[in-house]
Amino acid sequence: MEYTKKMLRDDALAGKTIVVTGGGSGLGKSMTKYFLELGANVAISSRNLEKLQNTASELEQETGGKCLPVQCDVRNYDEVEQMLQLVLDEFGEVDVLLNNAAGNFISPTERLSANAFDTIIDIVLKGSKNCTLAFGKHWIDKKTENKSILNIVTTYAWTGSAYVVPSATAKAGVLAMTRSLAVEWAKYGIRCNAIAPGPFPTKGAWDRLLPGDLKDKFDLSKKVPLKRVGDHQELANLAAYLVSDFSAYVNGEVITIDGGEWLKGAGQFNLLEAIPEELWDQLEAMIKAKKRG
Amino acid sequence: MEYTKKMLRDDALAGKTIVVTGGGSGLGKSMTKYFLELGANVAISSRNLEKLQNTASELEQETGGKCLPVQCDVRNYDEVEQMLQLVLDEFGEVDVLLNNAAGNFISPTERLSANAFDTIIDIVLKGSKNCTLAFGKHWIDKKTENKSILNIVTTYAWTGSAYVVPSATAKAGVLAMTRSLAVEWAKYGIRCNAIAPGPFPTKGAWDRLLPGDLKDKFDLSKKVPLKRVGDHQELANLAAYLVSDFSAYVNGEVITIDGGEWLKGAGQFNLLEAIPEELWDQLEAMIKAKKRG
Amino acid sequence: MEYTKKMLRDDALAGKTIVVTGGGSGLGKSMTKYFLELGANVAISSRNLEKLQNTASELEQETGGKCLPVQCDVRNYDEVEQMLQLVLDEFGEVDVLLNNAAGNFISPTERLSANAFDTIIDIVLKGSKNCTLAFGKHWIDKKTENKSILNIVTTYAWTGSAYVVPSATAKAGVLAMTRSLAVEWAKYGIRCNAIAPGPFPTKGAWDRLLPGDLKDKFDLSKKVPLKRVGDHQELANLAAYLVSDFSAYVNGEVITIDGGEWLKGAGQFNLLEAIPEELWDQLEAMIKAKKRG
Amino acid sequence: MEYTKKMLRDDALAGKTIVVTGGGSGLGKSMTKYFLELGANVAISSRNLEKLQNTASELEQETGGKCLPVQCDVRNYDEVEQMLQLVLDEFGEVDVLLNNAAGNFISPTERLSANAFDTIIDIVLKGSKNCTLAFGKHWIDKKTENKSILNIVTTYAWTGSAYVVPSATAKAGVLAMTRSLAVEWAKYGIRCNAIAPGPFPTKGAWDRLLPGDLKDKFDLSKKVPLKRVGDHQELANLAAYLVSDFSAYVNGEVITIDGGEWLKGAGQFNLLEAIPEELWDQLEAMIKAKKRG
Repeated sequence: MEYTKKMLRDDALAGKTIVVTGGGSGLGKSMTKYFLELGANVAISSRNLEKLQNTASELEQETGGKCLPVQCDVRNYDEVEQMLQLVLDEFGEVDVLLNNAAGNFISPTERLSANAFDTIIDIVLKGSKNCTLAFGKHWIDKKTENKSILNIVTTYAWTGSAYVVPSATAKAGVLAMTRSLAVEWAKYGIRCNAIAPGPFPTKGAWDRLLPGDLKDKFDLSKKVPLKRVGDHQELANLAAYLVSDFSAYVNGEVITIDGGEWLKGAGQFNLLEAIPEELWDQLEAMIKAKKRG
Repeated sequence: MEYTKKMLRDDALAGKTIVVTGGGSGLGKSMTKYFLELGANVAISSRNLEKLQNTASELEQETGGKCLPVQCDVRNYDEVEQMLQLVLDEFGEVDVLLNNAAGNFISPTERLSANAFDTIIDIVLKGSKNCTLAFGKHWIDKKTENKSILNIVTTYAWTGSAYVVPSATAKAGVLAMTRSLAVEWAKYGIRCNAIAPGPFPTKGAWDRLLPGDLKDKFDLSKKVPLKRVGDHQELANLAAYLVSDFSAYVNGEVITIDGGEWLKGAGQFNLLEAIPEELWDQLEAMIKAKKRG
Repeated sequence: MEYTKKMLRDDALAGKTIVVTGGGSGLGKSMTKYFLELGANVAISSRNLEKLQNTASELEQETGGKCLPVQCDVRNYDEVEQMLQLVLDEFGEVDVLLNNAAGNFISPTERLSANAFDTIIDIVLKGSKNCTLAFGKHWIDKKTENKSILNIVTTYAWTGSAYVVPSATAKAGVLAMTRSLAVEWAKYGIRCNAIAPGPFPTKGAWDRLLPGDLKDKFDLSKKVPLKRVGDHQELANLAAYLVSDFSAYVNGEVITIDGGEWLKGAGQFNLLEAIPEELWDQLEAMIKAKKRG
Repeated sequence: MEYTKKMLRDDALAGKTIVVTGGGSGLGKSMTKYFLELGANVAISSRNLEKLQNTASELEQETGGKCLPVQCDVRNYDEVEQMLQLVLDEFGEVDVLLNNAAGNFISPTERLSANAFDTIIDIVLKGSKNCTLAFGKHWIDKKTENKSILNIVTTYAWTGSAYVVPSATAKAGVLAMTRSLAVEWAKYGIRCNAIAPGPFPTKGAWDRLLPGDLKDKFDLSKKVPLKRVGDHQELANLAAYLVSDFSAYVNGEVITIDGGEWLKGAGQFNLLEAIPEELWDQLEAMIKAKKRG
């Protein structure tokens, strides 16, 4: 099984301009690279211009595509409007907004200050909202067609999760925005969708989130039915599908790509996986009695 | 905290007639007892008439209420119609159907025969459907008002669960029926709701489901944030609310009463509960670095 | 059917102290009144002290209970801490936090400024977070037991909704916080639940939201299978259950009380309700052909 | 926007053998055609052998692929085992099971007989279960790897729907089976996923479901935010992704492709779309008053 192969026809995104927030590293960078390979122009944004410039140069060399680095703190609406203007100046139009910039604290909630909690809401929810509002107003004002917003959320956007509560609240907000605007802005030719990735490790992020030997102790791949973490190309394939016209009838949807991780935790009797085959053999005769009133 | 106390005013169900399938034992019996205490007439059904008769006698003595045992295999539509007629003959009318009869196999799915799988679908899904259809046709034909159906499902009706797959498919079907008829039959004065209980042990059922020391090894209370299983009166309180007129504006809803069990499994970082306080102290300084692209 | 009757035993909340944000009017006031009738001490908060004082006086007279008005803008964490201190000074301890304060704009999203959008996030999401964090830190610090948080959300917290997008994002965040802390804080004896009410009109709020004859044109009761809006006592009954010990095993749950409204919109063929009986008669013979490949 | 174009690289399914139940017509036929174009061997099954043979011949001519017609009533487990054996005899192995066969009655539920209701459960739920069980047992017995099950469900699998209640219960069961086995059978190298299509008209099926001018009166495209029904190639693109190795980390997921249809119905204020721009202009000043307690 070669799941690291690239999925779409080579010109699948030709002619499209895509903005990827948080595009300088990690999954944002991986998606950006694949979009470039498929013929798109991509602008990447974050607060760290130097990192963006390095990434843009690297990806342009590797793919032959056009990658524009734009410094922008998405918490600031004025900066978002400036980013949009820079992209329009460079590429003439923009077709896709990919809200990927995020922040997270892993911590017991009661140890967080109100301010720390706010920071995550500001980056994730208000940041995504700022970009969505700026791009949407532009598209609606210009009476464009065939535009698309893709938001990166998480499975705990709907299940919630302890120890990442600011992120859970913010990502849930982004998911609700996705579903709301999928309906409201469809009449303007704007689709909205989301992806909920499971464990797709990126060295920097995971080292910060789970330092030291905690990474081994809390090996997230053990929670995944498929017993492995995801490969960045797998996420990039899905993202490319969702920003392409091939998904034109997918709207308001959040697609989970987590190997089944959240379901494995959620199902009441999934823990019985620990029962070995031999024991099932013994149990088989015993437990076929029906529970019935 | 006295959560085993009884919640509703003493006459909350006076004048109501309720049919509880699978009412001869377990949770069905517990709910039946509380309904009787609240003034309802209750008919209990299952295939085992002797058990029903014993339960009915016992509960009538304890509560002073009227409890009618009716033998019925809910898989057989004719028997369901006969049960309904017996209840009408005895009590004049029926106000509430509580679909509680169920069956389950705990087994790796590939070890089940197609027939064994069918048996659970027949008891749980077709049985609930048979009762729902017979009672609904009666109510609609007689142009009654203020009727209600309550279905007992599980949290794996929406998450799915390994090792209880026939039950998962059947309970999911019952939940969809609940939501569908809540909309369709509201115009006939029929409400439909469901309860998804977490672990509420009943001696017989749990011994059959998890025999021997498996019960200790797979102690379901450990999966519950509240660190305990449920008390039958807690479920009875919720069920009494849902079959009473006090819940008249609750329609199409499934209420989970599981102490948070399914969410604890579902949330991606909930496993970090295993980190002790001292380690969080150490981590606090380290991990406040933001992950941001 | 007397669904405006009061459900719980008269002393069901005796000894409990409850804080209701946004308790000065509307549904917050209705819930407060019933909590007082059930024996609880209640503190109500909002920005408008005069309104709070009037409400407190009125409810104390009507119920004989103790109602404390506390001015507080929940967007400001310091004010929230001061509110908590005032409640502790007055009542000695607090048992329940009911996050009910909210704000909303009904508007096409593209007509909103980034600031207007932020205002709703700040009131609804950050406000609920501020109260939750302050109360939770207090409870955890004092090693209390048997505490509870109840959050008022909406059905569009999970479906999203056009024209109320800031509220949708914020309420979705509150729901995720509910589910997250239900798991994380259960070990500290804190339960977290939510209610998603459908249409429960309150004169002031609805007049502002849907002015003029829009209220008639967009009669929300028409969308409800039960063909009526909710009565405030019905919501109060449910809220009282959820803040009482009778719901001690309900944790992490959101209970919808909307007469089936959201399901009626959601189900694909629910629109066929418009087909009259006579036409079904004609169709019956025609359409029983099976669609099967 | 050319959403009728074909998405995947031309050899994306080369070497795979796929069984499509209900593959003789409608969406099953459209997916089969695209799988053939992508290099797969496909067996199609239904009860009507002549139709299958015609479809197989037609598609082999059009695509140059290999298409095997196999008569099979999926309600009968023995026939399913025979179908599997025929496929193994012809192609050596089978890689993908696509449970697409379905049946439906559009009718008020109280007009259905218990038997009619059972028929849909038998075709949709037991049929999918029979195929899943037979293929799963084979794969587990042979210790194969990289197998996949794809189930076609509907959005009313989770919302429920009036007037198609047998289908709703059965499809909900199939969805629960998808999520359950995604977890349970992952250890055997079997993934399980589902697609929930919105309105993708197929002449035969829709004519039977909504005869005469009902089709115009209940124009499902009006319920879709994107204001159009889906094109078969759009569904085929998504199905091809999900049966290909490119989706190897998608497991236990149901992907909705409905243009946003179910969300448009579900969101509480989506009906305000009927307000014209001019009226929003008037309202803008009026309604910015905040509802806040």
